[in-house]
Amino acid sequence: MTDSAAYATLQDRFRRRALIGDALGILAWDQATTMPAGSADGRAEQVATLSVMQHELVVGPEVSDEIARARQDFAAADADDWHQGNLREMERAYQLAAAVPGDLVAAAARANAVCELQWRSARAENDYASLLPALREVLNLVRQTAAARAEALSLAPYDALLEEYEAGTRMDRLDPLFDRLASFLPEFLLQVLERQDARPTPVRPEGPFAIADQRALAAELMAALGFDFERGRLDISHHPFCGGATGDVRITTRYNEDDFTESLMGVLHETGHALYESGLPRDWQFQPVGNALGMAIHESQSLLIEMQVSRSRPFLSHALPRMQSAFAGTGAAWDVDNIYRLYTRVEPGFIRVDADEVTYPLHIILRYRLEQAMLSGDLDLADLPGAWNDAMGDLLGITPPDDSLGCLQDIHWPSGSFGYFPTYTLGAMAAAQFYGAARRDMPELEENIAAGDLAPLVSWLRTHVHGQGSCHTADELLTRATGKPLNPEIFLEHLKARYLDDS
Amino acid sequence: MTDSAAYATLQDRFRRRALIGDALGILAWDQATTMPAGSADGRAEQVATLSVMQHELVVGPEVSDEIARARQDFAAADADDWHQGNLREMERAYQLAAAVPGDLVAAAARANAVCELQWRSARAENDYASLLPALREVLNLVRQTAAARAEALSLAPYDALLEEYEAGTRMDRLDPLFDRLASFLPEFLLQVLERQDARPTPVRPEGPFAIADQRALAAELMAALGFDFERGRLDISHHPFCGGATGDVRITTRYNEDDFTESLMGVLHETGHALYESGLPRDWQFQPVGNALGMAIHESQSLLIEMQVSRSRPFLSHALPRMQSAFAGTGAAWDVDNIYRLYTRVEPGFIRVDADEVTYPLHIILRYRLEQAMLSGDLDLADLPGAWNDAMGDLLGITPPDDSLGCLQDIHWPSGSFGYFPTYTLGAMAAAQFYGAARRDMPELEENIAAGDLAPLVSWLRTHVHGQGSCHTADELLTRATGKPLNPEIFLEHLKARYLDDS
Repeated sequence: MTDSAAYATLQDRFRRRALIGDALGILAWDQATTMPAGSADGRAEQVATLSVMQHELVVGPEVSDEIARARQDFAAADADDWHQGNLREMERAYQLAAAVPGDLVAAAARANAVCELQWRSARAENDYASLLPALREVLNLVRQTAAARAEALSLAPYDALLEEYEAGTRMDRLDPLFDRLASFLPEFLLQVLERQDARPTPVRPEGPFAIADQRALAAELMAALGFDFERGRLDISHHPFCGGATGDVRITTRYNEDDFTESLMGVLHETGHALYESGLPRDWQFQPVGNALGMAIHESQSLLIEMQVSRSRPFLSHALPRMQSAFAGTGAAWDVDNIYRLYTRVEPGFIRVDADEVTYPLHIILRYRLEQAMLSGDLDLADLPGAWNDAMGDLLGITPPDDSLGCLQDIHWPSGSFGYFPTYTLGAMAAAQFYGAARRDMPELEENIAAGDLAPLVSWLRTHVHGQGSCHTADELLTRATGKPLNPEIFLEHLKARYLDDS
Repeated sequence: MTDSAAYATLQDRFRRRALIGDALGILAWDQATTMPAGSADGRAEQVATLSVMQHELVVGPEVSDEIARARQDFAAADADDWHQGNLREMERAYQLAAAVPGDLVAAAARANAVCELQWRSARAENDYASLLPALREVLNLVRQTAAARAEALSLAPYDALLEEYEAGTRMDRLDPLFDRLASFLPEFLLQVLERQDARPTPVRPEGPFAIADQRALAAELMAALGFDFERGRLDISHHPFCGGATGDVRITTRYNEDDFTESLMGVLHETGHALYESGLPRDWQFQPVGNALGMAIHESQSLLIEMQVSRSRPFLSHALPRMQSAFAGTGAAWDVDNIYRLYTRVEPGFIRVDADEVTYPLHIILRYRLEQAMLSGDLDLADLPGAWNDAMGDLLGITPPDDSLGCLQDIHWPSGSFGYFPTYTLGAMAAAQFYGAARRDMPELEENIAAGDLAPLVSWLRTHVHGQGSCHTADELLTRATGKPLNPEIFLEHLKARYLDDS
């Protein structure tokens, strides 16, 4: 392959793009954890400049030519999967970037930034009307972006948005998956709540829990999962995330001195993301095929560690003594049954990020339906609050008392991210499927986990997911690892086993 | 001016270059304070990529054309000083960058990185021989760089190196300045030591001094000097520096729990650099004329705050009660005469960075002479240790017992920085001259300082130095602010007043 001059040029181009991306990753981490408040304007200029330079590297007509010539060279040379995958990802990046005129990219970036800022105060003041003008502008530009991409990629506009976050995701694939969940979950939820009510209500351990102790416990469990503190960090930010750069993976959390349980599970979630990033194929670093596949597979890795592993009885039976030792915890709350019930508590609520894994998909389905309606024009933004509240009633049986607990809660739409939400639930389904396959491949997996030995699991993930980078499509990756493409029944079986069958 | 299309293109080009530079500033800060050790390889790739992109922006033949066309447009339009200065700085940047072939830039960067690494162990193990091969390669590439720049700029090779660090600095200017110091200081030093010996030896306050208390005191004095913590930070690193980005100025220090005095003065020194950076003309941010002038003027601002102000009796009489309150200090050491004697103690030593302001220029003169000899080939690197020790004997009357206290002490030569050292002493002279002018303009200046009111001084510096950016050359700046170009006698008068006349 390496004797294709066109491909070599593309490799240089994308290597540079990846390294600018790494610099942007460190700048974003710095902004969330460290940067003085008054330095935001300058940082915005730095980020805009690097982003434009990144964009310029892959949009010119010469890139399209190079891709075409590399394709010919590959056909002649019978290129292997990795090089083919790399070229495929280059082409995808080119198509996504080149489809949208530079002016529109810049206008959207500005409108998103303005609307995000407006959203912060609108949410704080529960004032949807104050958000409406900025949100109209964002949606207007999202529509133009979707139309431009749809044209270039021969896709429906909403599919063209989905494509950015998880390659190959289409409405005709999502609709049956989400219909299945929407028909199953409401009735299932009632059963779960009924069963839950018949059991003891879990008790929350009483604090205060010193932040230094919480951090030490989190770091201990991260290390057990294989997080490498020589090439990564754990810090504090208002909104937890996994970021940083290649070989420098940085996760964040926020601590509550009255309750350690939420932050701890948040750290384990971000550790799942971090393990993916740090396990990507080293031979392909800085090339597109060396990247994580997409947001759905990324979320599958965080949810596998959080939902499948960390909220399981085997893991909690291992973690409980560590929690007790970190906080000198004694009493009824510090019992594995109690901690397990606490960490698997189901409760319909208004806020997506606080939702349990049973109700979470319903929050996503609501957003999936509404964002399509907004994009098509069927739903006018003035009517969003009412439509939101109606859908909450239909799907979850509760109605938000105000918009800050309703359609104002998420940053995604104000920041122009339409088509992102579905990846959360695709990730939850893929997590159940990967974990099921890992258990099938390693019958002693849960015993290992209960004994605190997470190495076999992480090794399986490195082989079957992390180390594959973007070599295959998501469905190919799932099929190779689990024997079948994404199947929602595996996720539903997991829910039934955990919430109805578990003793 | 703004109707010159060529100039507008140059402004875009240099704006982008400045913003990449700001991103590099944050990455460098992160590397020194925060980055996990194992992430160094990836960071090196990020920095190399951004540096190359920065370089490429200003080296093409089209840049030369744009500069020529902008010159014509300016001549026709009678451009003002700021636009003229901006174009002059653009041309300077172009000439410095374009003079050196890209291959040579890359080879030098690699050789410097290798040699820097080798230097760390060579210094630790006091093993000059182990450094020699890598240092030969560095010097070889420095010579090629100097030759290329000398050719392009019609300068002597060493002048072509000086030009990078402080525009317009030439050997024929430095030689008489340094000769004057070299003839004055050794005899003066003996007088100072004799007088010092006849007085009480200062007592060092006894610790321990908690790091949190040291930091709080440092931050209090920084704030009094006008450091804006909303647009800047104080952190910890092994080697103190002032870095960060436009509108995000970050200084560092290191703390010693047994002695707060060194770190405190280090912080005040870096605060001087930071005030310069944060006081640069906002209207010209991201343009070359909005930059700090050069390393000599930069050092003048740190040395003005450290040497002229912070080690003075008026400042120390204000700072002492704050020190006492920070550390609950009582006893003989906490006396303003003692603290003043401590902070103005003169003592010939082997290490430049520990030197007092009387002996410091002698360390610089030594390096100035040796680096010229190395560049010209008069001094072979194998003979450097001997030449160093001989010069130490001649200039300071002491001979290093080994090379780690001799020619291995500084990172500058191993990292390829030849021509940098003179700026330290140019800065010390300019600091004395600026401070003298400020006192002349504000007869109550030292009373204000003794009362803790540093605003008049900082305001003077903002007007006469910081806010001027790179609009004028260093000599023009000095002449406008002080009435004359750089004059070493002012520095010598300062030394005489402080070390011989002060009661």
